[in-house]
Amino acid sequence: MNDTWKDYVIATYRLAASGDLAKKAETIALGMTVGSWTGLPAARQEALDRHAGRVVTVEGNLIRIAYPLTNLTPDLPALLTCTFGKLSMDGKIRLVDLTLPPHFAAAFAGPKLGVEGVRERTGVHGRPLLMSIFKSCLGLTLTELAEGFFPQALGGVDLIKDDEIFFNDSEAPFERRLEACLRAGERARRETGQAVLYAINLTGPVHQLPEKARRAVRLGANALLINVLPYGFDLLQRLSEDPEITVPLVAHPALAGAMYPSGDYGIAAPLLLGTLMRLAGADLVLFPSPYGGMALERSEALDLASRLKDKTRLPCLPAFPVPSAGIHPGLVPHIMDDFGFDVVINAGGGIHGHPGGAAAGGRAFRAAIAASVAGVPLEQAAAGSSDLRAALDQWGSDKARIPKEFPI
Amino acid sequence: MNDTWKDYVIATYRLAASGDLAKKAETIALGMTVGSWTGLPAARQEALDRHAGRVVTVEGNLIRIAYPLTNLTPDLPALLTCTFGKLSMDGKIRLVDLTLPPHFAAAFAGPKLGVEGVRERTGVHGRPLLMSIFKSCLGLTLTELAEGFFPQALGGVDLIKDDEIFFNDSEAPFERRLEACLRAGERARRETGQAVLYAINLTGPVHQLPEKARRAVRLGANALLINVLPYGFDLLQRLSEDPEITVPLVAHPALAGAMYPSGDYGIAAPLLLGTLMRLAGADLVLFPSPYGGMALERSEALDLASRLKDKTRLPCLPAFPVPSAGIHPGLVPHIMDDFGFDVVINAGGGIHGHPGGAAAGGRAFRAAIAASVAGVPLEQAAAGSSDLRAALDQWGSDKARIPKEFPI
Repeated sequence: MNDTWKDYVIATYRLAASGDLAKKAETIALGMTVGSWTGLPAARQEALDRHAGRVVTVEGNLIRIAYPLTNLTPDLPALLTCTFGKLSMDGKIRLVDLTLPPHFAAAFAGPKLGVEGVRERTGVHGRPLLMSIFKSCLGLTLTELAEGFFPQALGGVDLIKDDEIFFNDSEAPFERRLEACLRAGERARRETGQAVLYAINLTGPVHQLPEKARRAVRLGANALLINVLPYGFDLLQRLSEDPEITVPLVAHPALAGAMYPSGDYGIAAPLLLGTLMRLAGADLVLFPSPYGGMALERSEALDLASRLKDKTRLPCLPAFPVPSAGIHPGLVPHIMDDFGFDVVINAGGGIHGHPGGAAAGGRAFRAAIAASVAGVPLEQAAAGSSDLRAALDQWGSDKARIPKEFPI
Repeated sequence: MNDTWKDYVIATYRLAASGDLAKKAETIALGMTVGSWTGLPAARQEALDRHAGRVVTVEGNLIRIAYPLTNLTPDLPALLTCTFGKLSMDGKIRLVDLTLPPHFAAAFAGPKLGVEGVRERTGVHGRPLLMSIFKSCLGLTLTELAEGFFPQALGGVDLIKDDEIFFNDSEAPFERRLEACLRAGERARRETGQAVLYAINLTGPVHQLPEKARRAVRLGANALLINVLPYGFDLLQRLSEDPEITVPLVAHPALAGAMYPSGDYGIAAPLLLGTLMRLAGADLVLFPSPYGGMALERSEALDLASRLKDKTRLPCLPAFPVPSAGIHPGLVPHIMDDFGFDVVINAGGGIHGHPGGAAAGGRAFRAAIAASVAGVPLEQAAAGSSDLRAALDQWGSDKARIPKEFPI
């Protein structure tokens, strides 16, 4: 970023309208900050000058506006309200990007653990992580939940993600569910030697969630799942900066599709689920993979992941990308080609739908991951893993044949 | 609502895709609740039955799905995640409506004061209320803020709305700003005999905002402005249900345009800013008027307002619609035609841009309101009010000539 803008956040917008965009840009720069200059005495204009937005560039349908840091506080409600709050309602306009000067970005919470911290918690250093989607949980008793948890853990997954729609937990209350699943994970660990993290869904009145999270951590919780957009980005930031909440924060993208898919409106997915999730403090971020039925375009998914991981883009720790939906073992080499080594392989149907059951599904993934890390083709590795063989027979390994799958 | 669905929330979606929507509807009903039935033993299917979503209707591009209340808790994060969370990312699909059975809707906070409560607080019973938009506030000292507040209050407005982008208030800290503006309002009251509410912008870490709001109320705050979407709907609900927060909650629509304007994606404006804001507890809801440059379609704006006010639609108290942007005195009869008697007339440029200044701007509006309530044409009323005369000369009274205006 040019030194001229070292004390500004630069917002990039795409406008659908043609016409005088230079004039429109001026209207936005002032309208979103100090209002109109018209009729103000010179002394007042001078005092307001350091609060006024500036037009950086107008190129084609893209305009870039610089907002003074002095108008902002380092949190997402301020950043979003000041750059896109009322402007979002001003016709066909889309927030494409936000560029924060490093000293301002550093004031956000960012991930507490990041990629390395999560690797330490899981004890996994030589390969991508494997996460299992725990579906469906609704209506299960504690015993049934533990029975569902155990085979997933037994298959060698590193994390198990709670159902994000688990709100009414009267039949499996939060603390007792945590205890039951942790115990099932411990039982699996005695067989496999491997620990598993359980990202339990954090729900309740928003202002009580930091205290609920602290209590969960005291009870042994080792990860938390958060519906970041339904609760607001600020909750994530306050969980991340809380010194007593020492566990990985797993961000679910629920509701994101209400904001990113339109070309004319909303907030671009790489910004919304990449930059902003990382700034607010997610250690892992789920987003639609470019493979499944619920897909992001490949270029967008890769851009999103790069915003989560790239150390040159933000001063905070990198977060794990978790491309989700449509994932089965045959895809593992493609995922590593696309997203690199620091990625979480996340599967629902690709684990639970394995013909040998969830444990076999996990083992098939682990075999695919080990092979891909070693550079061994899956077909060759399947000779030594009947679970992988069965997965490849069921789902193939050709991206073009990836089945449509619904869950994240 | 049919008695069959008395224990369900019904979501209406519009899909852009053609094809087998009946099958798609089934996939959504199960995928958003219990997951797939495939391969489950009969006993398990039976146990899950009461948690499964149901297809209500498939008509053209509209599908309606019923979600069992037993999956939900009465709060907006649960409602939105369970009806549109991951589904929002599933291609071209838009959440058009949510219908809640009255006993479930009654469990939400809803407005604490509602239309009648706000009328009591302001002492205004015989006419629409008048609100002034306090722009711009950035960079002003406490003295300057008080100087800006006073003439607005002097003109006879009932509420003054803080600038919603007021986050970094280091030059005019929240509590001192509150005190300075309340004092300016009190000074005006001694001249006009009329009280004014100051909706101060509530900002800070989301989990601390209920306590900050309680402290503000103890210090004399008489209204609060909330950026509901940037902070998440749940904050509004927790403020509304807090017994110590006894003042009107004014909901700003910042960021709403990231969600409602696309025809293919997102959440319809009447649902987002009408039904959901009221459920969560807003006493007043700002939304783009159908008149200004930042406009909702008239039918949408009217539907939105009806969802805020109609007692047959929701069991909670009615809230005030505040159609905003592009409002000047000549519009008052049109606003009352469109939105009725229980409406808040909200103006920025239409008050501050009056040739006689903000106090004259307020008086022009009050004259227009008094005339419209009495059924007197504005041109006739202007004979008795030089302020209204000047406003009509500046802005006219013809909807077709309404100037484009940016601020809300």
